[in-house]
Amino acid sequence: MVIVMNRQAKLAEIERVEAVVAAAGLTFYTMEGIQYWAIGVKGETQRLASVALEALPGVERIVRIQTGYKLVSRELQDSDSIIDVDGVKIGGGHFAVMAGPCAVESREQLLEAAEIVKAGGATFLRGGAYKPRTSPYDFQGLEEQGLAYLAEASERTGLKVVTEVTETTAVERVAHYADVLQVGARNMQNFALLKAVGQSGKAVLLKRGMSATINEWLQAAEYIVSAGNPRVILCERGIRTFEEYTRNTLDLSAVSAIKRLSHLPVIADPSHGTGKWHLVKPMALAALAAGSDGLMIEVHPNPAEARCDGPQSLNPENYHKLMQELQAMQAFLKGRPA
Amino acid sequence: MVIVMNRQAKLAEIERVEAVVAAAGLTFYTMEGIQYWAIGVKGETQRLASVALEALPGVERIVRIQTGYKLVSRELQDSDSIIDVDGVKIGGGHFAVMAGPCAVESREQLLEAAEIVKAGGATFLRGGAYKPRTSPYDFQGLEEQGLAYLAEASERTGLKVVTEVTETTAVERVAHYADVLQVGARNMQNFALLKAVGQSGKAVLLKRGMSATINEWLQAAEYIVSAGNPRVILCERGIRTFEEYTRNTLDLSAVSAIKRLSHLPVIADPSHGTGKWHLVKPMALAALAAGSDGLMIEVHPNPAEARCDGPQSLNPENYHKLMQELQAMQAFLKGRPA
Amino acid sequence: MVIVMNRQAKLAEIERVEAVVAAAGLTFYTMEGIQYWAIGVKGETQRLASVALEALPGVERIVRIQTGYKLVSRELQDSDSIIDVDGVKIGGGHFAVMAGPCAVESREQLLEAAEIVKAGGATFLRGGAYKPRTSPYDFQGLEEQGLAYLAEASERTGLKVVTEVTETTAVERVAHYADVLQVGARNMQNFALLKAVGQSGKAVLLKRGMSATINEWLQAAEYIVSAGNPRVILCERGIRTFEEYTRNTLDLSAVSAIKRLSHLPVIADPSHGTGKWHLVKPMALAALAAGSDGLMIEVHPNPAEARCDGPQSLNPENYHKLMQELQAMQAFLKGRPA
Amino acid sequence: MVIVMNRQAKLAEIERVEAVVAAAGLTFYTMEGIQYWAIGVKGETQRLASVALEALPGVERIVRIQTGYKLVSRELQDSDSIIDVDGVKIGGGHFAVMAGPCAVESREQLLEAAEIVKAGGATFLRGGAYKPRTSPYDFQGLEEQGLAYLAEASERTGLKVVTEVTETTAVERVAHYADVLQVGARNMQNFALLKAVGQSGKAVLLKRGMSATINEWLQAAEYIVSAGNPRVILCERGIRTFEEYTRNTLDLSAVSAIKRLSHLPVIADPSHGTGKWHLVKPMALAALAAGSDGLMIEVHPNPAEARCDGPQSLNPENYHKLMQELQAMQAFLKGRPA
Repeated sequence: MVIVMNRQAKLAEIERVEAVVAAAGLTFYTMEGIQYWAIGVKGETQRLASVALEALPGVERIVRIQTGYKLVSRELQDSDSIIDVDGVKIGGGHFAVMAGPCAVESREQLLEAAEIVKAGGATFLRGGAYKPRTSPYDFQGLEEQGLAYLAEASERTGLKVVTEVTETTAVERVAHYADVLQVGARNMQNFALLKAVGQSGKAVLLKRGMSATINEWLQAAEYIVSAGNPRVILCERGIRTFEEYTRNTLDLSAVSAIKRLSHLPVIADPSHGTGKWHLVKPMALAALAAGSDGLMIEVHPNPAEARCDGPQSLNPENYHKLMQELQAMQAFLKGRPA
Repeated sequence: MVIVMNRQAKLAEIERVEAVVAAAGLTFYTMEGIQYWAIGVKGETQRLASVALEALPGVERIVRIQTGYKLVSRELQDSDSIIDVDGVKIGGGHFAVMAGPCAVESREQLLEAAEIVKAGGATFLRGGAYKPRTSPYDFQGLEEQGLAYLAEASERTGLKVVTEVTETTAVERVAHYADVLQVGARNMQNFALLKAVGQSGKAVLLKRGMSATINEWLQAAEYIVSAGNPRVILCERGIRTFEEYTRNTLDLSAVSAIKRLSHLPVIADPSHGTGKWHLVKPMALAALAAGSDGLMIEVHPNPAEARCDGPQSLNPENYHKLMQELQAMQAFLKGRPA
Repeated sequence: MVIVMNRQAKLAEIERVEAVVAAAGLTFYTMEGIQYWAIGVKGETQRLASVALEALPGVERIVRIQTGYKLVSRELQDSDSIIDVDGVKIGGGHFAVMAGPCAVESREQLLEAAEIVKAGGATFLRGGAYKPRTSPYDFQGLEEQGLAYLAEASERTGLKVVTEVTETTAVERVAHYADVLQVGARNMQNFALLKAVGQSGKAVLLKRGMSATINEWLQAAEYIVSAGNPRVILCERGIRTFEEYTRNTLDLSAVSAIKRLSHLPVIADPSHGTGKWHLVKPMALAALAAGSDGLMIEVHPNPAEARCDGPQSLNPENYHKLMQELQAMQAFLKGRPA
Repeated sequence: MVIVMNRQAKLAEIERVEAVVAAAGLTFYTMEGIQYWAIGVKGETQRLASVALEALPGVERIVRIQTGYKLVSRELQDSDSIIDVDGVKIGGGHFAVMAGPCAVESREQLLEAAEIVKAGGATFLRGGAYKPRTSPYDFQGLEEQGLAYLAEASERTGLKVVTEVTETTAVERVAHYADVLQVGARNMQNFALLKAVGQSGKAVLLKRGMSATINEWLQAAEYIVSAGNPRVILCERGIRTFEEYTRNTLDLSAVSAIKRLSHLPVIADPSHGTGKWHLVKPMALAALAAGSDGLMIEVHPNPAEARCDGPQSLNPENYHKLMQELQAMQAFLKGRPA
């Protein structure tokens, strides 16, 4: 930690900060720069967590070098985590595709979608039973009935189910039907929910918040892991920027950065990430090339009739083409040195 | 609603879209532009909500003219809503200041803070008992004990209590102690929570999400009002941008925009909005000049010892100075034509 | 400067960095943290400017405490700079309004606008003769003819002329007609232009770039001042964010921040900052309350016929009302303690 | 074009807008929605370019369907443009790598870099002789001497030279030495410069502005092409977002979007796009997978001694590895259906 002092800071102010640091049992080093003084602090700087250093007279700002997460860090565990979902693995060289419709709309729609998903070679079925929607007047999902359809589709196809849970009181219910609990972008910092899924015993897919930094995202994962659940999969789904052509800006550099900073698997969602079905294939291939451990893809038997997010859903034909391309590229990449 | 077609769209594709619109019982008008075709749709376009128009072949994008909210709109109600919190009013010319520490830290700290807040002339006491924190290792609040201290401080001073509720299961508990339920920025699109506070019978303070558009924010308010609770106060607390000097970018134009788009009262939080105590006073005065119905201000008996957000908290002296300036400017503004 | 090392950095890598620092004649202090090593460097760290420290093995990142500007800093000069434009002052308590149309469209339009501007009490006439436009097919301005009209309007009314210069080869020409050279947002980091206006002998109005940080903006001002021209006025004109309702997000906290960081005067442009005429008045008053040294306001005799930016231009009636409000609030603020 | 009217718009206001549209010789269709009226306008809406429709009473906003560019659009030319730089092609299946140091630092450094670049298989040598730097106190480049070194390196190796030009007065000079003129991100809307390079006769590399939308970027390209120069290569180099880990956020979806919207070739610059050398390889491969026509890569004989941007430069070894991966992936992709 470095405490930066105003150039106009008085000697007494600098000494007060030094005294506060010393009182916490920490050693320090005071540096005189051209424009600022700075006090470098050594050791367990968490001991200063309860002190509002920036509020002390003369302090300009605090530069924190710590990241706020530990259990999910690559420093703690050098090898990739492999998440095993009832026999289907993701991470550490195991690439997985999660495909399906945005929302579960009916038994027929979902079973048809599941067959398509299965035929293409994906191993997870995605589909929303509880839909978080910007407007209260939009379709909100089939709720528990939707969960039952997902479980039925899973039984028929062997696909593992990943579906969103939007509140703590629903965690148990969703966990009863699903294999992976998804925490959506809008809930990435719903800390009560993070703790609840951390105690659920189920694997968790944690989407990046739409304006979350990589550091905040990893701290959100830390909430889940520190609650006792190490089975977390991260999912980049686009961040909010000024660009208007795409629904979000898919940040593939975050995928590569996560591979360096954390041992957790990370996948990309080019459907939500771009909002346009014709950008899904190039971004899916790009994500794979960037080191992604998997993909989440929206597929609908008939996108024009989808009750949500039709514009970004692939039709069966385009989905199958994409899966072929992905398999070919995976085979190619496996043959290359890392 | 306007459906924009690719310039290369085939006649059959245009006719298919027209047929879909007609099938929903709506009339339309097809326009040929230089670069695009466009189909203007008249009437209750919600009837097309379940159709994924953008997924139809030839469709480039959909321009929606509707806003997604109704009950909170200025169109529905021309006069300002005045929210009455047990005798203390806000909105429609009633200006209110909500002040207090970021977090309830101890009985002594809170009672001292409440006396300072009261002496300065604010009418609401703010203070967090449940603190949403980025890192799981940071101080998370005193929880129900903190609520009890808030209620005690309210009894002593007559200040109304506004405090954050972070999950649906806590709504009843928080409502037992508090006068206004705060929904924080990270939960602005926690729709389960919005519905729960919409059924709580308590006034709600809805903070803007850190990357929420004004339109999304008003739709979040619509969730609460459409659940049966018209007593919503909006709070601008800064949005996330690339700027690094300030913690967030306080968007005061959103305050003025809300006054035009909605009848609900809107206040500003320059403490979180800037993250620096020395920017609180100028931004508080600016918010008042921009038409804000009130302010939320962090005040701490001793900011340097605050367990959270000390750098943006005012000390008692600066708080009193600010309140004097606000009262003088309010008196000045009341004497001016609108 | 603090050099942060990977936790996995080898001792030899740390020693190599220390050797590089020592070779530059600087002293340092190596700190062991929980997650990282850090090397604090003391003194004239510019001596390391030519070394790519971040490229040395084991280095994670460099934390620079310096700001990159000196001459414009409040540290260098504690008192406010007052810019004198041929008798009209701005800064240090002198508040100035610059008003007029977005573009000079014709002699009649400009002379009429100038009379309106003068009657309202502004002291500067703004108007573009060279218009930077996003599309090559939009109106590009009357060029030198426009400059001549501005000079004629100035002669008739006594208003000082502020107008944009968009390239180095035009500096001399624009300086011949204008009192203040405006560098637009798109050119804030057109360093050749900054140097050229720095040698022009004219006062310069430097608009903030649409995605420039406060620090970058002050460094751009440093280019002008270090080229020999201390007469720089900064102008906040809104930054680019995800918000769609407003054209830009007017960052009034930047105005207050600049007053703390720099001695230069800073004004706000609520017309470009919001893009909507009905937000101009509240944002203008808010800017004044935030400590702005002046305002730039678009006024047009007939906004509906403006060839550019009509939606954000005030008509004469609204301009006059605004000026009355500004004068009343200025009088109010002058009577208050700082 | 659609003119959206306030719900409270009076009939007379709607009729006035209709009259304005009719006066321009255009036909229209007035639609009544639930929340708004809307007037759809047919035909050459540019005839309304000189009318500030949004300033007419009752008008809420204007929805423009046109894009502002024509010559660069895929609508105008369906086949990919292939830019031929003295025998080296880019676009339409021709993939090209531009590599070299951020800045030309010395004759030795550049000649050594050029040999490395050549040996790896790139066909263009990049290197800055005029460096736009945020601070006036940073190294500004070797200027004309640097250009001469670039020309010498080109002669020795056969590599084509791409280098930045930062002002109109330098276009002729840079064009004398270089094969491709680079317009940097900070100058993307320096319209005078765009026109000048549009008249230079040289191919132009146009970098995306750091907060430019795809639409604005294509309009900037339209400036160059409409000035008479069809040889434009676009370069995505990262946009400015709130993320702090990466220097910028490389927007690879923009690469895919450009391939759909325009016939011009587009490349990516993962060095500037991420600011970290260890992200260059994964992002380079991802860009290729996303459909990029080439890459710009920073390579330095000794990154730790680079005078600018060392942290994002590859050393020779990593550059050679990257080139091998790129060649293998290109070969793989060529064998696949589009």
